[in-house]
Amino acid sequence: MPDIPKSAKIGRNVVIEDHVKIGENVFIGHNTIILNGTEIGDDVVIGFNCVLGIQPIGNQRMRQISKNHNQLVLKNNTRIGNLVSIYSGTLVAENAFIGDHASIRENVIIEESTVIGRGAIVELNSKIGKKCTIQTLVYVTGDTIIEDNVFIGPCVSMSNDKYMGAQPYKLIGPHIKKDAKIGNNASLLPGITIGQKTIVGAGAVVTKNIEDGQIFAGVPAKDIKN
Amino acid sequence: MPDIPKSAKIGRNVVIEDHVKIGENVFIGHNTIILNGTEIGDDVVIGFNCVLGIQPIGNQRMRQISKNHNQLVLKNNTRIGNLVSIYSGTLVAENAFIGDHASIRENVIIEESTVIGRGAIVELNSKIGKKCTIQTLVYVTGDTIIEDNVFIGPCVSMSNDKYMGAQPYKLIGPHIKKDAKIGNNASLLPGITIGQKTIVGAGAVVTKNIEDGQIFAGVPAKDIKN
Amino acid sequence: MPDIPKSAKIGRNVVIEDHVKIGENVFIGHNTIILNGTEIGDDVVIGFNCVLGIQPIGNQRMRQISKNHNQLVLKNNTRIGNLVSIYSGTLVAENAFIGDHASIRENVIIEESTVIGRGAIVELNSKIGKKCTIQTLVYVTGDTIIEDNVFIGPCVSMSNDKYMGAQPYKLIGPHIKKDAKIGNNASLLPGITIGQKTIVGAGAVVTKNIEDGQIFAGVPAKDIKN
Repeated sequence: MPDIPKSAKIGRNVVIEDHVKIGENVFIGHNTIILNGTEIGDDVVIGFNCVLGIQPIGNQRMRQISKNHNQLVLKNNTRIGNLVSIYSGTLVAENAFIGDHASIRENVIIEESTVIGRGAIVELNSKIGKKCTIQTLVYVTGDTIIEDNVFIGPCVSMSNDKYMGAQPYKLIGPHIKKDAKIGNNASLLPGITIGQKTIVGAGAVVTKNIEDGQIFAGVPAKDIKN
Repeated sequence: MPDIPKSAKIGRNVVIEDHVKIGENVFIGHNTIILNGTEIGDDVVIGFNCVLGIQPIGNQRMRQISKNHNQLVLKNNTRIGNLVSIYSGTLVAENAFIGDHASIRENVIIEESTVIGRGAIVELNSKIGKKCTIQTLVYVTGDTIIEDNVFIGPCVSMSNDKYMGAQPYKLIGPHIKKDAKIGNNASLLPGITIGQKTIVGAGAVVTKNIEDGQIFAGVPAKDIKN
Repeated sequence: MPDIPKSAKIGRNVVIEDHVKIGENVFIGHNTIILNGTEIGDDVVIGFNCVLGIQPIGNQRMRQISKNHNQLVLKNNTRIGNLVSIYSGTLVAENAFIGDHASIRENVIIEESTVIGRGAIVELNSKIGKKCTIQTLVYVTGDTIIEDNVFIGPCVSMSNDKYMGAQPYKLIGPHIKKDAKIGNNASLLPGITIGQKTIVGAGAVVTKNIEDGQIFAGVPAKDIKN
């Protein structure tokens, strides 16, 4: 058991493994598990029944997992919901919020003041910028880049495997540029780029790159502005 | 620790905070957490690893949360699955069923005999009528009204923010009238009304109001009956 | 408490009920619950905060649940993630992987080396073949058959109730034949068959049977190969 500051409020049945660092005024809810090496800043609130700092495992059919998994870092004033899982090697920056039932893989960066919705899942090696809103049940695939101030509506789906497991292929997720907005339940295909301030309609299927400042909707998504 | 009737069956590592009321013949599974002020009726079954009675938190970029959060009330004979989260200020009426991994926010009303599917998420201030079926992984956005006897298929997505975070706007979810049926993975836009006994096809994107007794499908959804 | 081999590594606050069998070199993470009658093979890894071996419950509006629920069986070398729920009467075969937050119902068979993604939900009476990849947040409805080596992209939705609760009807899920590939966020309707090596595009809505070796996309899905 590591040193826990007197200012911390720790619930019942909480498990805190070795080599965990805990800042001042931290709240950890009942039954939450903080695994080896996790680093928690000041004024962090962590809900109930969470698992934080997971080391990746896999099976022989899943792709190679980074051997270099450092610790999970939760910066000052982050808020973590309930029943959340977050892997090691991930950074959650100041004032970010992770909703209930969300799951964040290893080697992810979530920048300041971003909101990750309930039940959203962020896969490995993805980067999400500042002040983004990633709504409920969004699926952010691996190797995705989301720039600052992006809005992603509920249930948006992304993919990163052009050949759906059939061929050796460099996995590459979407690249969503700053100030873009994606409507609910849209589908984004592997490797596409969505331009700055571009708007994608609800339920659209985006199959190719979209330039800055466009409005696209439909299946497949087409220009509805010009 | 509050008074617990002798008829209750309480699992191991269960946390029951102060000011919790528990009726007769209640089952609470191992590792479940019942937070301050929760009121549980008779013959209620609560699964394992749940968190019930959560007080809302947020960050400065999320919308104002009601200060008037009363307790969570689970009426007689409700059934709560496993790994479920439910907030305070919400009412789950008699004979309702909440599936595994579901999450229900504050100030929600779920009326008698309604079923909420596995992994479904219901946001704040929504009302769901009697004998509804809200299937697996449905997303019910905030400020939604669902009348009695509505069927919502798996993975249906709703939104309540017409400007996707861009403008001050009164958030308003869909209004789904009684006996309507929504096919799986349909997308509903903010503030639309779906009429009584109307049927929406699987994968449809509903962008405007639909009158009673219609059949709509496609992207965007169009009348396929007349 | 059953006999636990000395080779097992059991976390803190773990609940292991009676009549559980545990093989050699098993890892069970903190706060996980193993319910009555579960059978765990050798070299199995189970994450944190899981609930395994759940007996089905329901309410009077849900369909009849099999009375003949045998135990949950996890075969040798299976890997179970974190915050996972699995019901009794289900078989997870050798080398299979079940991702974090996934939920698997009763009477399901998951064959060797198949991967079930994070947050995916598999309903009762379904069978998933060998070496399948069922990606993140996929919904496999009840009474579905998925043959060997199928790829199902993220957020794919299936349904099994043609009349959406309105009529007595034999529930029947999709039948997806071997080597088929389904793109992300596609919707599959009740009882359809998708042929061998057929490819379905992202966001497609499949409303009728598709023969072997086809490529279909759109809403409703149409032949885009010929």
